[in-house]
Amino acid sequence: MEREGYTLGIDCGTQSARAVIVRVSDGSIVSESDMAYPHGILTEKLPDGTGLPKGFVLSMAEDYLEVLPAIVQEAMRRAGIRAENLIGIGVDATSCTVVPCMADGTPLALMQEYRQNPHGYIKLWKHHNVKEQAERIEALARKRGEKFLSYYGGMVSCEWMLPKVLQIYEEDRQIFHKTAHYVDLCDWLTWRLTGILTRSVNSAGFKGLWSAEEGDISQDFLNGLHQGFGSAYYEKVLDGPIFLSGACCGRLCPAAARWLGLSAGTAVSSGMMDGHASVVSLGMKRAGEMAVIVGTSNSIPLLADHLTAIEGFCGVVRDGIIPGFYGYTAGQISTGDMLDWYISNIVPARYEEEAKRREMTLHGLLAEKAGISCPEKNPLTILDWWNGNRSVLCNQQLSGAIWGLTMATRPEEIYCAMLQGIACGTRVIMERGRACGIQIDRVFACGGIPRKNPFFMQQYANILDMPVYAANEAHSSAHGSAVCAAAAAGEERGGYAGLVQAMERMHINDLTEYRPQREHAADYERIYQRYCDLYWLLGSRSREALASVKEGDGFYEKRTN
Amino acid sequence: MEREGYTLGIDCGTQSARAVIVRVSDGSIVSESDMAYPHGILTEKLPDGTGLPKGFVLSMAEDYLEVLPAIVQEAMRRAGIRAENLIGIGVDATSCTVVPCMADGTPLALMQEYRQNPHGYIKLWKHHNVKEQAERIEALARKRGEKFLSYYGGMVSCEWMLPKVLQIYEEDRQIFHKTAHYVDLCDWLTWRLTGILTRSVNSAGFKGLWSAEEGDISQDFLNGLHQGFGSAYYEKVLDGPIFLSGACCGRLCPAAARWLGLSAGTAVSSGMMDGHASVVSLGMKRAGEMAVIVGTSNSIPLLADHLTAIEGFCGVVRDGIIPGFYGYTAGQISTGDMLDWYISNIVPARYEEEAKRREMTLHGLLAEKAGISCPEKNPLTILDWWNGNRSVLCNQQLSGAIWGLTMATRPEEIYCAMLQGIACGTRVIMERGRACGIQIDRVFACGGIPRKNPFFMQQYANILDMPVYAANEAHSSAHGSAVCAAAAAGEERGGYAGLVQAMERMHINDLTEYRPQREHAADYERIYQRYCDLYWLLGSRSREALASVKEGDGFYEKRTN
Repeated sequence: MEREGYTLGIDCGTQSARAVIVRVSDGSIVSESDMAYPHGILTEKLPDGTGLPKGFVLSMAEDYLEVLPAIVQEAMRRAGIRAENLIGIGVDATSCTVVPCMADGTPLALMQEYRQNPHGYIKLWKHHNVKEQAERIEALARKRGEKFLSYYGGMVSCEWMLPKVLQIYEEDRQIFHKTAHYVDLCDWLTWRLTGILTRSVNSAGFKGLWSAEEGDISQDFLNGLHQGFGSAYYEKVLDGPIFLSGACCGRLCPAAARWLGLSAGTAVSSGMMDGHASVVSLGMKRAGEMAVIVGTSNSIPLLADHLTAIEGFCGVVRDGIIPGFYGYTAGQISTGDMLDWYISNIVPARYEEEAKRREMTLHGLLAEKAGISCPEKNPLTILDWWNGNRSVLCNQQLSGAIWGLTMATRPEEIYCAMLQGIACGTRVIMERGRACGIQIDRVFACGGIPRKNPFFMQQYANILDMPVYAANEAHSSAHGSAVCAAAAAGEERGGYAGLVQAMERMHINDLTEYRPQREHAADYERIYQRYCDLYWLLGSRSREALASVKEGDGFYEKRTN
Repeated sequence: MEREGYTLGIDCGTQSARAVIVRVSDGSIVSESDMAYPHGILTEKLPDGTGLPKGFVLSMAEDYLEVLPAIVQEAMRRAGIRAENLIGIGVDATSCTVVPCMADGTPLALMQEYRQNPHGYIKLWKHHNVKEQAERIEALARKRGEKFLSYYGGMVSCEWMLPKVLQIYEEDRQIFHKTAHYVDLCDWLTWRLTGILTRSVNSAGFKGLWSAEEGDISQDFLNGLHQGFGSAYYEKVLDGPIFLSGACCGRLCPAAARWLGLSAGTAVSSGMMDGHASVVSLGMKRAGEMAVIVGTSNSIPLLADHLTAIEGFCGVVRDGIIPGFYGYTAGQISTGDMLDWYISNIVPARYEEEAKRREMTLHGLLAEKAGISCPEKNPLTILDWWNGNRSVLCNQQLSGAIWGLTMATRPEEIYCAMLQGIACGTRVIMERGRACGIQIDRVFACGGIPRKNPFFMQQYANILDMPVYAANEAHSSAHGSAVCAAAAAGEERGGYAGLVQAMERMHINDLTEYRPQREHAADYERIYQRYCDLYWLLGSRSREALASVKEGDGFYEKRTN
């Protein structure tokens, strides 16, 4: 059967959203449109000037409501297709980005009476002002021997739903009760599209403490955090049926059809976390496959065929990414972020001038120079902990380190060591997985950076000592959502019978293979070993050292929140 | 008695030499003149193009012969005094800078037949191509339980006379035998001035393994290094009477009087190492006083009233700096050097522009910004090991480290941590001395950097938790030599009865006192403790880690030689 239809993938990132139109028959992207959110992220004050406590990171519901129709219509226009050619819609978003809603899904902060209250706003995934709550949840879970903790790497993250909602419950009981539902952004988006509140396995599993085996977290545990919190949390958070990735969670409702200028009845697939939508786009459907999504931070999902608890990973969820597999994730918090820091803070003027003169980016110039300078002999070791370490040390208080500086050290060697340090951090994660019995035999890279930095990818292949398949596609999350949409549409409506079939036909083909340079294998092994030396030396040391430093003045606190 | 005379101090540094004329009555500098050596230092090839092995660092005898009369005559002209007003001459120089000479003191490399031979040239103190010899000497001394080793911090340095001469003996026996004397630069200079070969306690003690108690190193030990080397070394190196600092080692001979345009018969004081001449200039004449001479590297002499072996110090010599005291020295190899590296390699363009716009030096701008940014809360720790660590780890293979980097780290915090790291390195040295029973209760700073960087000195006082008295005088070595000259002249010729009396009247008065900021004492203690944590963690680790890294390719070797 020749599939003539198209699907729409919508990806809501932190600062901007993008829409892609994808041909169902072969998965090619026909058009794309993106737009930054007009208000960006709010960290210092609300639009009316109300100041925000430190660590608050909010966004405005209006932004999503305005940006989505604009990018969807522009993508449709560029594709030159009509609404009836669109057989499905998929969405992915940052997670857990908590939207407090009225009973009908209207965000609380759209209501005049809540516009001055920070707790009425959308809390972005990186709202880290819930550290106290996260630590309390972790301590209680440890004390009670809660099984879930071991499946989330032994740590409770500020990025989850639970600490964010607990904060509101404790800090503003009135607004807590006014809120009918707390919903992760991707689920709120499908709710807007379909008119029905559902949850996705992907978000509920990785950020909501739900698992197929155990169901939701117990009310008893929640009451242990705060008496009476259990039933409240069940009522306001754990509501709605749960759908797998690529499942049809509803159909475009008339109101949403008018909002986006599309046809009512179009299939909508269950939402996903943005990074995990890339897994779909890459066509990962075999145990042992891993992706490194390189952006501001690195998200590292991988597929396996069995369950095990891995200390220092972010989570494992059965059917959590691709149905039929245990989906694991790990993360590195400061990767692209750290490179941007380098570019902003320690590139000397003569390099800026040379880049300008030669019309290159600074990344391009530094990568060129690093490539010439025998990267395999680079004597510098860099720990990429500018924002702390997520996997496998789970310590946000850690900070970055450079070791091996001499009078002969050149800027490009520092840049090179940063790239190598990021790759070494990924390898530590891989080796931790392997030590726990998880096979990893194929590595993909995607995100904004890989296609722009071949030198980086070559370092990755050398350090991991495996080929790396890098996607030459900037919008793999949105593309992955479009693939999900084709599965949600179903075969009878011109889509596919299931997600695996859709991935089979629609996954990204444009990959560059970076093979390890065998002639330098011993050198890169040495670079990795040196990284491990410093990693364990400072990684185990810092927690204790900083603990003593913290006493009294809390300036470390200030910097890491 | 009113002293109306003047003395001349000559300081021969690595890249340039300077002369000062000093008023004997009060020690004030009346005039100054300096000049760079026309040939600078030779590290890649001889003037005729002959290539040099890696690690060779040579200088040209012609340079000293040409530059000295020029700066002396210019200083005399500027002072407006006549030769007969000059009652004494003192010299100091880099050490151990080995001058191979004919029997009359003519440098071998002035002879046509030796001009193509690197071993005929002057070897600068930092000629480090004798690592193999230094290690062999150290190993033999350890094996034989030689007492001297413990008085030189447990390590044999490439900077000493012995490994440099052993190298020539082993690599070019012919030129070794053609050479009548191997003389340290300061002794060669007094030889030129007086016509008599003598040695100074200062150089013989700290760089020549001589001690008042034990005399010279044994022939037996020298023969253990190479059969037959013992008598050869005694004949060519250990020759000439030994004079204390400030002693008259001779009088200006007629040939030298013509060479410099001065009066024959003028008293010449025994030579000194350049850093130690500063001790004289500062007027240090009490046990418990320490100086930090901050330049490319830090030299740290201190005076004590008893002898003890301190692991990791560079040496201890009775009467070695100021007669009547045990002189100890320790060192930090990469201080000003490391700051220059920072300025050249990681200052961002916007800072360069700001410095230019505001007509400030980059050091000035960075210090200003660092001062504003709460230096006492600086979360960065920097190990100043860009050239390795001299005291107290004695490991040239160590390299620099930066720890504590976050997304919020600003360039001035890195700069500030470098300054703090240098001061912390000095405090580690102080604490090592104290732990071995050496009292330190007064700290001076001098050299090129202190008077230019008050912020740095304030950090020093805070980290050391003691007042620091910083000399506002760029030429303290030359000044110290001029003070020695007044002692050498003696009281009957318008000078002083001894060095202590000369120092009493002539020492530098223009000192700025930096007091520790008591309100930040706890913060600076924390900064120091964090430095110590990293110091011992990486300092003990690296030797072993690098040892394994070194196997196979030697690239660490390459960088540290």
